[in-house]
Amino acid sequence: MSRCYNFGAGPAMLPESVLRKAQDALWDIGTGAGILETSHRSAYFDAMMDALHAQFRRIAAIPEDYDLMFLQGGATLQFCQIPATFARPGDTIDCIHTGFWTRNAMRDAAFYAKIHYAYDGAVSNFQHIPRDDEIHYSASPAYVYYCANNSFLGTEFRRPPKTDFPLVADMSSNILSRPIDVRAHSLIFASAQKNLGIAGCCVIIIRRGFLDTCPDAPSMFNYKRLVQNRSMLNTPPTFALYIMKLMLDWIDEHGGLEAVERHNRTKAAIIREAIDDTRGFFTHVGEPESRSMMNISFHAPTPELDAKFVSQAETLNMTGLRGHRETGGLRASVFNAFPVEGCEKLAECIRRFARENA
Amino acid sequence: MSRCYNFGAGPAMLPESVLRKAQDALWDIGTGAGILETSHRSAYFDAMMDALHAQFRRIAAIPEDYDLMFLQGGATLQFCQIPATFARPGDTIDCIHTGFWTRNAMRDAAFYAKIHYAYDGAVSNFQHIPRDDEIHYSASPAYVYYCANNSFLGTEFRRPPKTDFPLVADMSSNILSRPIDVRAHSLIFASAQKNLGIAGCCVIIIRRGFLDTCPDAPSMFNYKRLVQNRSMLNTPPTFALYIMKLMLDWIDEHGGLEAVERHNRTKAAIIREAIDDTRGFFTHVGEPESRSMMNISFHAPTPELDAKFVSQAETLNMTGLRGHRETGGLRASVFNAFPVEGCEKLAECIRRFARENA
Repeated sequence: MSRCYNFGAGPAMLPESVLRKAQDALWDIGTGAGILETSHRSAYFDAMMDALHAQFRRIAAIPEDYDLMFLQGGATLQFCQIPATFARPGDTIDCIHTGFWTRNAMRDAAFYAKIHYAYDGAVSNFQHIPRDDEIHYSASPAYVYYCANNSFLGTEFRRPPKTDFPLVADMSSNILSRPIDVRAHSLIFASAQKNLGIAGCCVIIIRRGFLDTCPDAPSMFNYKRLVQNRSMLNTPPTFALYIMKLMLDWIDEHGGLEAVERHNRTKAAIIREAIDDTRGFFTHVGEPESRSMMNISFHAPTPELDAKFVSQAETLNMTGLRGHRETGGLRASVFNAFPVEGCEKLAECIRRFARENA
Repeated sequence: MSRCYNFGAGPAMLPESVLRKAQDALWDIGTGAGILETSHRSAYFDAMMDALHAQFRRIAAIPEDYDLMFLQGGATLQFCQIPATFARPGDTIDCIHTGFWTRNAMRDAAFYAKIHYAYDGAVSNFQHIPRDDEIHYSASPAYVYYCANNSFLGTEFRRPPKTDFPLVADMSSNILSRPIDVRAHSLIFASAQKNLGIAGCCVIIIRRGFLDTCPDAPSMFNYKRLVQNRSMLNTPPTFALYIMKLMLDWIDEHGGLEAVERHNRTKAAIIREAIDDTRGFFTHVGEPESRSMMNISFHAPTPELDAKFVSQAETLNMTGLRGHRETGGLRASVFNAFPVEGCEKLAECIRRFARENA
């Protein structure tokens, strides 16, 4: 059986070159041990972590006054770790609410602070990413929270919202898919299993002035100690970090983030154009200016035709096209490592399906 | 270069059969996708998680009224998650203090409750595991905390301490190395990278009556929701779970925990006897009745000879023999997957080194 094109929302496809390198590394990394068996206190791993930090900083253009962490627990642990650290009882957190993931994040944040919805996307059924003049901040929020790309319905911020308050972004589903405006943020976090490798690791980029406000806390909740210990206060998820290093090598081989963005734009356009070509048989989800480059959400005229499309695509080795479990419809997630050939194959399938079922 | 015998304290050696299976699974698990790229919401992964739960319960003989979780964050996240959940402000936690890991755990727990040292191993320089009559509990602790095996100096409880208070055990370095008395405990936790596979996953076994006392909490701190969601509230560390499943298969192939214990006993005895045979050149760390089956700590007459021994062993493809960074000396960690041949090779090296350097 040949490998499928996996359009799922993550864990996502990895480049075949990364998989081949990882297969070799499982047996022996040249030290007489496999990567899974290698101590995080070894010279090999220490050098790899140094290289990972330096390469990530260079690729993402992280300014000198920002720190970088690689933690466990996924983005979801950050849903409580961030408010536990940066909100005091009685504080308000301003949320730009754009769907499933901001809702989940605020459910956890509400244990620590009051939540003010500076924008509530429910009014547009989450089809719309707000302009700055549609966002109404409270008087003095501890920070402003938003989700840069909403994988659940396929909407994405073109640029960060403008605010003078500390800005916190969940970039789990679009990190390193294009250049990042790090300076606009006080904290960026992103789980790895979409654009940065595999499940089990979460990247944090934090402005040092914001980090300095962290109170003393237990070790795994103590960003300061985690930074001081280069994310190795305890045993880190060593294999997820190794795969992330290979993904950064892959980004470098592809010419860095500008090239990756061009590539991602092309991929999304191939699918979006096929949807347009069906002249209303398939419908985009999300307003034109709000649509995601990572997650292309769309639907057929009926749920039955959505299901038929998913089945037909599966017979052609294309998987993971079912929409988010809360929304239904169809969704094609095309993260960094997803190949252009898969997009062309899906585009062809979209056009043929529309012709045959119109 | 041939693969080394890795005596490090973790991440530990894996069986070669597990590594070979994992290499294949990286490319394709028979679904057209590799295991790293497989969604935790897929039928494949769902079935694997069911099988993992059932197999773990059977092998560890977990009673019906206990639940099982597989979380991220390592054992260290539990150092704060457990007191945050089970201690109220003003409560006391009783700790049986046996070294580095109980010290670190209580440093975090002290953010949530008062700590009472029901036994303080510092008086014996942590060479001694207390008998029940040496442990003096406070009037009504929220729970009693101990570390079942102390990897840092190589001491181990033969059986759990006797107490009527809820008993919480860190079994990170000896879980599934022999049968567990689950009933003696209210909560057992263990990181995976020693006996259960790779870094990035932590197993929790919890008595349901104890679980019922959990207050409402943010999602990743909410054991009840984590149990209800079969540890898949968010994206779990899918590959670490896959490797754990392979490790359970390996335990089954070896005849279950009784057979694994016999095997581990033999391995430790081979090294301990070689140390005895040097007639005082090498010295055991830990009192005879307190010594660990997993981590064999010992030392030569001088730190210089320790270092010389480590170097000599490395030329013979035996790595990771340096003692814990806080204690120095020598340490041979022989977790489940460490092969008996490696123990024989080390024993031979110990005897020869003593002859040549006496």
